[in-house]
Amino acid sequence: GRGVALTAAGARLLATARAVLSQAEALADAATEEASSLTGRFAIGCFSTLAPFLLPGIMDHFQRSHPGLGLDIAEASAPDLDDMLLQGRIDVALLYSVDVSRQLVFDPVHAYRPYVLLGAGHPLAKGRSVRLADLAAEPLVLLDVHPARRNTEQIFATLGVTPRIGHVTTNFELARCLVGRRLGYSVLFQRPAPTLTYDGQSVVTMEIEERLPPTVFGLARPAGAFPSARHVALLNHLRTTAGP
Amino acid sequence: GRGVALTAAGARLLATARAVLSQAEALADAATEEASSLTGRFAIGCFSTLAPFLLPGIMDHFQRSHPGLGLDIAEASAPDLDDMLLQGRIDVALLYSVDVSRQLVFDPVHAYRPYVLLGAGHPLAKGRSVRLADLAAEPLVLLDVHPARRNTEQIFATLGVTPRIGHVTTNFELARCLVGRRLGYSVLFQRPAPTLTYDGQSVVTMEIEERLPPTVFGLARPAGAFPSARHVALLNHLRTTAGP
Repeated sequence: GRGVALTAAGARLLATARAVLSQAEALADAATEEASSLTGRFAIGCFSTLAPFLLPGIMDHFQRSHPGLGLDIAEASAPDLDDMLLQGRIDVALLYSVDVSRQLVFDPVHAYRPYVLLGAGHPLAKGRSVRLADLAAEPLVLLDVHPARRNTEQIFATLGVTPRIGHVTTNFELARCLVGRRLGYSVLFQRPAPTLTYDGQSVVTMEIEERLPPTVFGLARPAGAFPSARHVALLNHLRTTAGP
Repeated sequence: GRGVALTAAGARLLATARAVLSQAEALADAATEEASSLTGRFAIGCFSTLAPFLLPGIMDHFQRSHPGLGLDIAEASAPDLDDMLLQGRIDVALLYSVDVSRQLVFDPVHAYRPYVLLGAGHPLAKGRSVRLADLAAEPLVLLDVHPARRNTEQIFATLGVTPRIGHVTTNFELARCLVGRRLGYSVLFQRPAPTLTYDGQSVVTMEIEERLPPTVFGLARPAGAFPSARHVALLNHLRTTAGP
C-alpha cells in the first residue's frame, strides 16, 4: 500500500508525544497507588463551628485505624474551604450543603435538626418539645454565625413568626450562657454533650414541634476526582459516628 | 480710682466667655447626675474569650439590681477595645492587664491561675496536681488565642521545658475536645464548669505544681475620668462573683 512518511518535524513531535504519554501514565500509576493506600498525608478542611464536634473523633479514629496516614487539619470559613479545595491545598472539606460551590462534589453525612435551648426552670422546659410560636414574645438569643443565622431567620419566616431579638452574638458558648441565665431562648443546630454552660448554669434541649427543614453537613471534594480510599474511609467513619 | 473700660471687642469676648462657662457648668451638672445615677445606658466592652464567663452574669445582675440602666454589650479584640474606650464608644472594658494601654486606668478583678487539662483516664490524672515537666514528652494542644498562647510559651520558657507541639488551634472548645480524645494535654487559664466536652468526652482539671505567675483580668476605663456609680457597681459585682 501507500506508506505515509513522517517529516523530520513530525518525527520529533511524535517522540515528544510518546514521552509525555509515558510520564502521564507514571503519574496516573502513582496517583492510583496514593489514592488506594492509607499512607502519606491527608489534608482535611473543616468549617470552624463544626470542628469541636467532628475533628477530634476523626483524628482519634485515623490515628488508631490508619496510623500510616498523617492528617493535616485546617479550620476555615466556608468560602476559604471552597478555594482551598479548588486549589488542591486540601483533599476534602467538612461543610454544610448550602455552602458547597457547584464546582465541588458533595456527599451528605448527617442532617442536624434545629432545636430550642431553654434555661432550666423555664416554664416551657418541663416537656420534651416546644412550639416556636409559643416563644415569640420572649427575647431570642440569635447566634450570628453562618449558616445558623440565615437558617434561624428562615425558620421564623416559614412559620410566619416574628421573633423578638434580645441579644445577637457570634459566640456559640455565650449564646448558651445567656440562655442558662434566663436572658432569652435560642434556636441552635449543633448539640453539645454538657447540660451545664461554661459559667455553671443548666440548659435544656427541647425539640421543636413545628415541621422544619434539617441542615445537612457532609464531605466536599473537587468534581472529577475519583473518591480515594482515604476519602471513603473518612466518609464511612463520619456516617457511622455522626449525630444526633 | 482709675477705672478700666472694655473696648467693644473686649465686651463681646467677655459675653461669649460667660456663655461658654455657663454651658460648661450645665454639662458638668448633667455629667455628674448621669455618673451618680444608675439609669440611662452603660456601654460595656468585653474581650471575646472572657465573654461566656463574665457577660451573662453581669447582664443578669444589672437587670435584677439596676433595671433602670440599659446595657450595651460589645465583644471585641483587645486593641479594638482600647480604641473604643479612647473614642468614648464604650464606658468600660473587661480586659487582661497585659492588654491595657497606658492611656487607660486598670482596676484588677481576678487572677486566673493556669492549669493543665488532661483526658480522663490519663495516667497522671489520678491526683489533684501535675508537674508540667512530667508532660514535656507528650503532645501539647496549644491554644493560639491572645494572650493565652504568649502566656503558655512564657510558662514553658520560665521552667526551661520545651513542649512538643501536637496541635495548634484558635478554638477553645476544640482544644478541650482534643484533650478529651487523649490526643494531647493543654495549658489553659479559664475554667468552664462542665467536665464533659462538646463531643461527650471527660476531661480533668489539674493544678500545676511549679510556681507560675497568674494572669490578671479587670476593668479598664479612660484615664482622668472619675469612676461613675455604674462603674463602681460593675466592679463590686465582678469582685464578689469572679473566680475560681
